[in-house]
Amino acid sequence: MPDTATGYDRAAVEEVLREVEAGGRDSLTAPEGKRVCDAYGIRTPEEALAVSSEMAVAMAEEIGLPVVLKIVSPDVLHKTEAGGVLVGLRTAAEVAEGFRTIVANVRAHKPDARVVGVQVQQMLTEGQEVIVGAVTDGTFGKVVAFGLGGILVEVLKDVTFRLAPTDAGTAASMVDGIAAAEVLRGVRGNPGVDRAALADLITRVSDLVTDFPQLAEVDLNPVLATPTGATAVDVRILVDANAAEVPHRFTRDEILASMNRIMRPSAIAVIGASAEEGKIGNSVMRNLVDGGYAGEIHPINPKATEILDRKAFKSVSDVPGDIDVAVFAIPAKLVPRALEEVGRKGVAGAILIPSGFAETGNHELQDEVVAIARKHGVRVLGPNIYGYYYTPENLSATFCTPYDVKGGVALTSQSGGIGMAILGFSRSAGMGVSSIVGVGNKADLDEDDLLTFFESDPNTQLIAMHLEDLKDGRSFAETAKRVSLKKPVVVLKAGRTAQGAKAASSHTGALAGDDRVYDDILRQSGVIRAPGLNDMLEYARGIPLLPTPKGENVVIITGAGGSGVLLSDACVDNGLALMRIPEDLDAAFRRFIPPFGAAGNPVDITGGEPPSTYRNTIALGLADERVHALVLGYWHTIVTPPMVFAKLVVEVVEEYRGNGIDKPVVASLSGDVEVEEASDYLYAHGVVAYPYTTEKPVAVLGAKYRWARSAGLLG
Amino acid sequence: MPDTATGYDRAAVEEVLREVEAGGRDSLTAPEGKRVCDAYGIRTPEEALAVSSEMAVAMAEEIGLPVVLKIVSPDVLHKTEAGGVLVGLRTAAEVAEGFRTIVANVRAHKPDARVVGVQVQQMLTEGQEVIVGAVTDGTFGKVVAFGLGGILVEVLKDVTFRLAPTDAGTAASMVDGIAAAEVLRGVRGNPGVDRAALADLITRVSDLVTDFPQLAEVDLNPVLATPTGATAVDVRILVDANAAEVPHRFTRDEILASMNRIMRPSAIAVIGASAEEGKIGNSVMRNLVDGGYAGEIHPINPKATEILDRKAFKSVSDVPGDIDVAVFAIPAKLVPRALEEVGRKGVAGAILIPSGFAETGNHELQDEVVAIARKHGVRVLGPNIYGYYYTPENLSATFCTPYDVKGGVALTSQSGGIGMAILGFSRSAGMGVSSIVGVGNKADLDEDDLLTFFESDPNTQLIAMHLEDLKDGRSFAETAKRVSLKKPVVVLKAGRTAQGAKAASSHTGALAGDDRVYDDILRQSGVIRAPGLNDMLEYARGIPLLPTPKGENVVIITGAGGSGVLLSDACVDNGLALMRIPEDLDAAFRRFIPPFGAAGNPVDITGGEPPSTYRNTIALGLADERVHALVLGYWHTIVTPPMVFAKLVVEVVEEYRGNGIDKPVVASLSGDVEVEEASDYLYAHGVVAYPYTTEKPVAVLGAKYRWARSAGLLG
Repeated sequence: MPDTATGYDRAAVEEVLREVEAGGRDSLTAPEGKRVCDAYGIRTPEEALAVSSEMAVAMAEEIGLPVVLKIVSPDVLHKTEAGGVLVGLRTAAEVAEGFRTIVANVRAHKPDARVVGVQVQQMLTEGQEVIVGAVTDGTFGKVVAFGLGGILVEVLKDVTFRLAPTDAGTAASMVDGIAAAEVLRGVRGNPGVDRAALADLITRVSDLVTDFPQLAEVDLNPVLATPTGATAVDVRILVDANAAEVPHRFTRDEILASMNRIMRPSAIAVIGASAEEGKIGNSVMRNLVDGGYAGEIHPINPKATEILDRKAFKSVSDVPGDIDVAVFAIPAKLVPRALEEVGRKGVAGAILIPSGFAETGNHELQDEVVAIARKHGVRVLGPNIYGYYYTPENLSATFCTPYDVKGGVALTSQSGGIGMAILGFSRSAGMGVSSIVGVGNKADLDEDDLLTFFESDPNTQLIAMHLEDLKDGRSFAETAKRVSLKKPVVVLKAGRTAQGAKAASSHTGALAGDDRVYDDILRQSGVIRAPGLNDMLEYARGIPLLPTPKGENVVIITGAGGSGVLLSDACVDNGLALMRIPEDLDAAFRRFIPPFGAAGNPVDITGGEPPSTYRNTIALGLADERVHALVLGYWHTIVTPPMVFAKLVVEVVEEYRGNGIDKPVVASLSGDVEVEEASDYLYAHGVVAYPYTTEKPVAVLGAKYRWARSAGLLG
Repeated sequence: MPDTATGYDRAAVEEVLREVEAGGRDSLTAPEGKRVCDAYGIRTPEEALAVSSEMAVAMAEEIGLPVVLKIVSPDVLHKTEAGGVLVGLRTAAEVAEGFRTIVANVRAHKPDARVVGVQVQQMLTEGQEVIVGAVTDGTFGKVVAFGLGGILVEVLKDVTFRLAPTDAGTAASMVDGIAAAEVLRGVRGNPGVDRAALADLITRVSDLVTDFPQLAEVDLNPVLATPTGATAVDVRILVDANAAEVPHRFTRDEILASMNRIMRPSAIAVIGASAEEGKIGNSVMRNLVDGGYAGEIHPINPKATEILDRKAFKSVSDVPGDIDVAVFAIPAKLVPRALEEVGRKGVAGAILIPSGFAETGNHELQDEVVAIARKHGVRVLGPNIYGYYYTPENLSATFCTPYDVKGGVALTSQSGGIGMAILGFSRSAGMGVSSIVGVGNKADLDEDDLLTFFESDPNTQLIAMHLEDLKDGRSFAETAKRVSLKKPVVVLKAGRTAQGAKAASSHTGALAGDDRVYDDILRQSGVIRAPGLNDMLEYARGIPLLPTPKGENVVIITGAGGSGVLLSDACVDNGLALMRIPEDLDAAFRRFIPPFGAAGNPVDITGGEPPSTYRNTIALGLADERVHALVLGYWHTIVTPPMVFAKLVVEVVEEYRGNGIDKPVVASLSGDVEVEEASDYLYAHGVVAYPYTTEKPVAVLGAKYRWARSAGLLG
């Protein structure tokens, strides 16, 4: 009986699933697949099950010729390979003969296959082939897919993914989001297909796998889309009880309660603190002390009475008063026992620096540690990490060197090596940082927890994360979607290309077997994906300096025509829209530039111009409210030397900022080595500027735009 | 009568072209197109021309139903839009009715259209649609195209281009070179098509437009490809006498004769030399003198007797002895007269620094200058340039600052601004340069001439060129193909994305209307295309330092697992093949790394290792002759500090180099700021190393590989 609100007949699906379970099967037969489709309003061709050639002929004549014949057998999953499919049977004689051929083929292919009969199916001859499906992704759980069908789908892999359940808008965005979307809209006199019907179909599949999470894969391939509807011609559904499992999740309040104590602790214990230089337990103590952390620091060492002028304790149990954080600097095998004591003490966070856990194959030890932590309500960071920094508290809980340039960028890394690159880059660039966190093996605390803390942290304006995998991609996507509405989240996902081919039994599954699920879902979740390590670092450094643009109109103002062309290329590469300059504004620009200069966009002020020409044109771009962002191209000349350019730009930008007009301005400087100092000066004053590259400044602006668009801030 | 060698019937084509010319038409009718195809052995469907509905029925019955009907009219180019095409006519009645419908449609669409009749054509119902065509590209001349046909070709633009004439191997590479090539080879039980027939068809089209250059566009779309052949279903041919024009070209000997005098002059005149600081004529004089140029320098200035201690002359005519180069530092309008004198003096090269020519719209003045130069056999560099440098002669013939770091990199730029970026980057990076040349408006001398000189220049090992367009793309492609076999040629093609849509009357023409012709043909010509300005500069700096690899096996050795993953990503992005490590080599690596480290590739030596582990594994990679290149990932630790790492790497690389084993080694350094110094040290010793990025070192190695592959050096 269909549900009155949704129109879905859940009971019918439940009945099918009971039969499948009773049969000990992991896939549905075609007639079962059709029953499921019927129950969820998914249109399939007319069909009937024949158990004799005479019956097949009678049914074919009722349905209408031509027809397709398909074997129905619980033991044959790939029907075509088994010779179990015949298409385009146009006469009664062909149908009768076809029935016998199919059964014989399947018997030859797999002698012990149970043959239920032969499906006689209406043959659809018109329509654009597409694929609609759902898979249970190891990282993200239920994911729906939509793509171009037919042979080309396997070659071109023109397919897109979303988390299930989708809403109507998301489903429509999938139909419009494939490379060949134009084909569906209709090209060259072709009428196009019913895209609303396709979006509706995606939603139904999404609802189906959400309602029945044990449906591991649903594969409608091909779906034939016509101007008036969409019909799933072939249906393949796989069942797996494990597909319904959901990982454990902490609530936002639980996370914040722990994370606030961990990031802003009143007291820290260092388990394995040491007075001996070169030891990790010594480096951690020194960094806490030298870094200027103002809370209590308790060295824990059974053999010492004092370390770095602090009273040492044999165990955390002996420390008077509460402890918020325990930093572990002891060998892996000693961790469980110490963690028990830490747990009993009511510590909020255990920072597990030691390696020797899952990363070396010792999963048992790691599982044991997590179990102890869960028992006591301790959250664990690591193991196998360099530690963490939180500069607002002058906290350097790490064996690396302290970092003290305070600012709004929080960075996390799954790998210690990348953490060191973050530290070095930050120091070299003088980047203001709120926090750097190593997450290592992510036995417990992961990116979700950190995002949730940084979201609420007034000291953090942007979060940049290096990650190789996600423990719970769905939770990450949901958290990131929420957080990125308020603060930009930059993600460097490593291992993009290394996943290789997964064994998969459905088309949708095979298509999901690479980076594209990550890519599609990260984009939906509003994060800015960085293509490489250096990009992540430059985005993190530059994005917070740029004000959020109020619209899409980017204007290039350049002294070098050649830079203008390259900056235009970079704008297109980064999805930025070069403003079509209105006539009045064009005329206004022309008043400032030589007659042979080019207005339009880029505005080419030409090379030999004095500072006033740069100044006037930049001021015009800032003043005109139809312009939303400026990209500057500078050409080193004697008339306008690099530092003169840099200072005039800062002056005019600050003048307008003082008047409440704050637009993102980025710059590319071409010239002799003096342009390096000029770029640094500009950067230090909020103009994202680089020498010898037209790509980087535009890439940072592009990243800012991607964020602003997805956070709905462009208006 | 077909030619006995080629089988082509040129006379038949000539006859068709005479008819077209006589009719004052610029396109062939379908029957004319078929005659051309017949003459060049291009298979088309069986067909006949009917002038009445009765005749159409008779012909359809002879050819065999179903048939296609198409209007034949010299005035209707887009037959479908005019209602002039009907497909799938299955009975005599449908054919008769169809004839009348088509004629009526065309009359309604274009009342004055001359109707020759209706083509009755065999209807092919099987086969994969592809497109084969040829266009006359404004830059490259005759270009052949091959792509996926049908509606998808217009949406996905899966098409590839080559210069005509192609050889058989090139034609085959086109069939295999499209994204959907797998479809043609056959997927999922599909038999695939006759790819040899497609390659043969491409060659025939290529020969056709080469033999008849007045054929501006040939468009076979669709071609239906089956397992046994390929048939051009629709043929569209456009004629344009201008399409046969060939630009003027100098011979290699002519170019070298001029270029050798220009780049290694014995005497230089500076037209407009000045004693007044701030003037261009003064800067040029100073740079020549201060740069250490040892030849004669003659200031030319009608009002001076001496400039910078050199005797000044009123005119070049007054200078005793020969002059090789005249640098012009006078206003544009004075150039023609001075150039006449320069020409009469027998000067080899006129370096036109002034602007005010074509770039400001003054094409007449530029044409006048070129005409004068041609008359006297003077080659012109510019106008609108900063000048040029040739360091082996200590020659800085420019108004910019001198450059004296000698080395093997020659750079050219079309834009002055980009030239300044080249200068600044070179100086900042200490890059050894043989030459920097501004080509500006390219009124005469262009990239071909420079390539030809640098090819023969023993001081140049690599050529890097910034260009916005090519005057004669075909000549460039041919020259670059020859030069790049000996020396890497890096090209930054600006304006990739700015070309926009061109009006085009054929499918092939429309598909050629963006950057893909450039991209395909530059790739064929063996140049390494840099995606951006900074990439061009980094490629230029790094490629000459790396020895040419002997094979494709790249091994990553890393102290940071996280870097290893990112370096693997970068390898895949850059088309590098991560070696599958043989078992014995794997075992050998394992002997040096901790048990929880990972052999395989990347070789993860883990983070806490001493210098000896880096040393031993790198030495193993160098020693094993199955390994062809090394990518190193360094992780800053106390155990192996950055400079210790840098020095051990240089030591071991130089040790093997001393023993005749020289493999490319690149490195990514993760760590605190000390990694910057370590990277510089490595770079200075021939190991291309960068801090805070895993992408750049691999991109440079990838560029080296692209060159080595296309030059056939990998063996």
